[in-house]
Amino acid sequence: MTGSVAVIGAGDHIGAAIARRFADAGCLVHAGRRNGEKLAPLLGGNITGRSLDARESEDVTAFLAEAEARAPLDLVVFNVGANVNFPLTETTDRVFRKVWEMACYAGFVSVREAAKLMLPRGSGKIFVTGATAGLRGNPGYAAFAAAKAGLRAMAQSAARELWPQGIHVAHLVIDAGVDTEWVRVRVIERIGEEALAAQPDLLMPPEAVADAYWALFNQPKSAWTFEQEIRPYGEKW
Amino acid sequence: MTGSVAVIGAGDHIGAAIARRFADAGCLVHAGRRNGEKLAPLLGGNITGRSLDARESEDVTAFLAEAEARAPLDLVVFNVGANVNFPLTETTDRVFRKVWEMACYAGFVSVREAAKLMLPRGSGKIFVTGATAGLRGNPGYAAFAAAKAGLRAMAQSAARELWPQGIHVAHLVIDAGVDTEWVRVRVIERIGEEALAAQPDLLMPPEAVADAYWALFNQPKSAWTFEQEIRPYGEKW
Amino acid sequence: MTGSVAVIGAGDHIGAAIARRFADAGCLVHAGRRNGEKLAPLLGGNITGRSLDARESEDVTAFLAEAEARAPLDLVVFNVGANVNFPLTETTDRVFRKVWEMACYAGFVSVREAAKLMLPRGSGKIFVTGATAGLRGNPGYAAFAAAKAGLRAMAQSAARELWPQGIHVAHLVIDAGVDTEWVRVRVIERIGEEALAAQPDLLMPPEAVADAYWALFNQPKSAWTFEQEIRPYGEKW
Amino acid sequence: MTGSVAVIGAGDHIGAAIARRFADAGCLVHAGRRNGEKLAPLLGGNITGRSLDARESEDVTAFLAEAEARAPLDLVVFNVGANVNFPLTETTDRVFRKVWEMACYAGFVSVREAAKLMLPRGSGKIFVTGATAGLRGNPGYAAFAAAKAGLRAMAQSAARELWPQGIHVAHLVIDAGVDTEWVRVRVIERIGEEALAAQPDLLMPPEAVADAYWALFNQPKSAWTFEQEIRPYGEKW
Repeated sequence: MTGSVAVIGAGDHIGAAIARRFADAGCLVHAGRRNGEKLAPLLGGNITGRSLDARESEDVTAFLAEAEARAPLDLVVFNVGANVNFPLTETTDRVFRKVWEMACYAGFVSVREAAKLMLPRGSGKIFVTGATAGLRGNPGYAAFAAAKAGLRAMAQSAARELWPQGIHVAHLVIDAGVDTEWVRVRVIERIGEEALAAQPDLLMPPEAVADAYWALFNQPKSAWTFEQEIRPYGEKW
Repeated sequence: MTGSVAVIGAGDHIGAAIARRFADAGCLVHAGRRNGEKLAPLLGGNITGRSLDARESEDVTAFLAEAEARAPLDLVVFNVGANVNFPLTETTDRVFRKVWEMACYAGFVSVREAAKLMLPRGSGKIFVTGATAGLRGNPGYAAFAAAKAGLRAMAQSAARELWPQGIHVAHLVIDAGVDTEWVRVRVIERIGEEALAAQPDLLMPPEAVADAYWALFNQPKSAWTFEQEIRPYGEKW
Repeated sequence: MTGSVAVIGAGDHIGAAIARRFADAGCLVHAGRRNGEKLAPLLGGNITGRSLDARESEDVTAFLAEAEARAPLDLVVFNVGANVNFPLTETTDRVFRKVWEMACYAGFVSVREAAKLMLPRGSGKIFVTGATAGLRGNPGYAAFAAAKAGLRAMAQSAARELWPQGIHVAHLVIDAGVDTEWVRVRVIERIGEEALAAQPDLLMPPEAVADAYWALFNQPKSAWTFEQEIRPYGEKW
Repeated sequence: MTGSVAVIGAGDHIGAAIARRFADAGCLVHAGRRNGEKLAPLLGGNITGRSLDARESEDVTAFLAEAEARAPLDLVVFNVGANVNFPLTETTDRVFRKVWEMACYAGFVSVREAAKLMLPRGSGKIFVTGATAGLRGNPGYAAFAAAKAGLRAMAQSAARELWPQGIHVAHLVIDAGVDTEWVRVRVIERIGEEALAAQPDLLMPPEAVADAYWALFNQPKSAWTFEQEIRPYGEKW
């Protein structure tokens, strides 16, 4: 298997795992994130990368052009997150706007710029990382839910427009924290260290999420999925 | 019945009809819109108003304070629209951002500022005008769907936070064009002038939408609705 | 206001309140329920009634014909409930089937038979009482959720078919227990007697639900609602 | 890979493809359907089977026990269909009841009986074939939509109850006709023979659907999906 993949939002967890999963399968991967110096552990082999501000459309265009120059893009992943939690009346104009710029506007720019490259070829895939907040506005999440619901609606509109032209747009709903130190501490507070040791699958490793992207990537044109939720077996929903 | 109402986005159709409906019922109404000179036919009697840019949070704060100064607000309506339709790749950064500012960000500011006034009293209602695009992203509507879905998610988050504190937040989905010259022409193209004359209820008069807001306004605290769709009987959905 | 109304499932709470609400407004009401002797306190004035097994289609047909004979039906309400709660493996064939017969099959028969009477006139309304279980399958509610989701889907299909022919089909989601002794005890267990005394609107009186049916009944043909959720302000959702 | 799989509703298309997909991967497969003589082309190798009326719970219990006797079941698939299309007033009691028995009641029985076998082991998977009608009630589909929405709600309730006990319940939404003679004729009527020859992926081969079941089957316990829609790239949705 070869393929050319760009990951916008190659953070420490899901984004990095996706980059590695596709690189391990033989794809060329171009990874971008803010604070690009943090990409160091990821780079090498099939993976290149650099600092990227996905809220700047020229930067996104340039980043995708670099990936495209190595090999025509088969997949663009948008994986920028921006989770915040404030009571409504303490959610400032600035927070509401910034969360939207990162989680929705940057997603729109990424999908549109990817589409421009793929439409002339009539093929390609564009996958967007969503969250439960995109499906349900919980108290304290006005900014995050508005951004993620906007991202999802944009992706749905793009899918309905681009699928018939051969471009597979999909939206993955990651309905749990992936296994990080922060999530681990929270789960231990809830159920205790022993209980977690006995049920390690309560936590979702980033690699399992990356496998879900890989499975979607391998769907044939005759059987595509737009939306899929992923959560560990013990997660309430 | 008396009451104090602010309408943000008192445009020619739905917004104006809401203002009139509540004024006719004896409420004091403060109406705001861009190009405030167009408010002239609406003003007088119980209705005051002025130019308002709902994307400027200071302006929203001041506008609501004016209404509040006449009488504590019982209802704030957010009714700013921003429907546009472009293929994804022709949706510019500017369009995507502007539609969001008008239909989502301004809605957030309005809801938040209304909540600040109402929370100390533990009562009040905040109604938001939504669209089908908030529920479904159709091709060509990436910007509009993202903005309206964001507005809906924000309203849902606000409702879950504010209802238990006595504030009724609701989201009305207006699932058809209201009866305007533009809609009328489109319907006549589709079914012919005679057919429309024979079935006038195919068109949704702004007054019928205003009645729906009035019915919601009269719901008792023990039986509230968050979301309600309104459409004429002949509309496909 | 006059009108002719049939209530299928005129139980002690919501069904009886609906019957009274419409009768008080001057409508002729024909009320049916199992164990018809329990209708006694309801009957008199504009309200007639009798025992009815809504799972028997001939019985439904005859019941509606009786109402129709007094005055052509303007509204048929289906309000039969059947809430049960069992772990999946303890849900017997008989329970699953019976809950469906009461909450879904009887609803289908009622809507179909009402439609047969109303279609030749090109007008009439058919309202169906739904539950949150129709939107979400919670653990322990396989039978109830399957029945209520089936009822909702049937109503939606009927609405899409009958609205263009002038028949208003609607589905009300009653998302809380109405104020009965049983619900009151449960709420007191949770929050205490004093807290409930201080917040009486935490409970939903059947009359408030009946008012929601009345508001729907008064919607003009140009602005109908298919689905509306009703819950007290303090209910979690 | 080895595994033990039972397919309830091993019809000519999707069900047979699933049976073959898992048998080819080395699983033991036990296949049941009405008119079991039609199973002949499927049987042999890893695949056994027999006539099965999934509406009879004793028959389902016995069928699963046979499979279990060969090897403890890792997966039970419920794939019985029952699509019909009638105007509401022409949908007879018998049709409504029969469609529900096949598409919903039999599904409940299958899931419950599978759960009884799997719960003591704390592992196993139960996948249910759904349809778009389970999400949306279209005109003419009152019976089918009610049955499929009921199936989906039952599966959702079962998932919420069984996931935390280690049983993976999932619901696949097959949002298009699979490639059969009947579907092919319909598509050719719409777009012409040449257009279809040029775009063979407009049709969904049963094998592609079976691959989706296979991918779900391989999800680790830390990253499960409850619901996934599958449709060809050119399908409207």
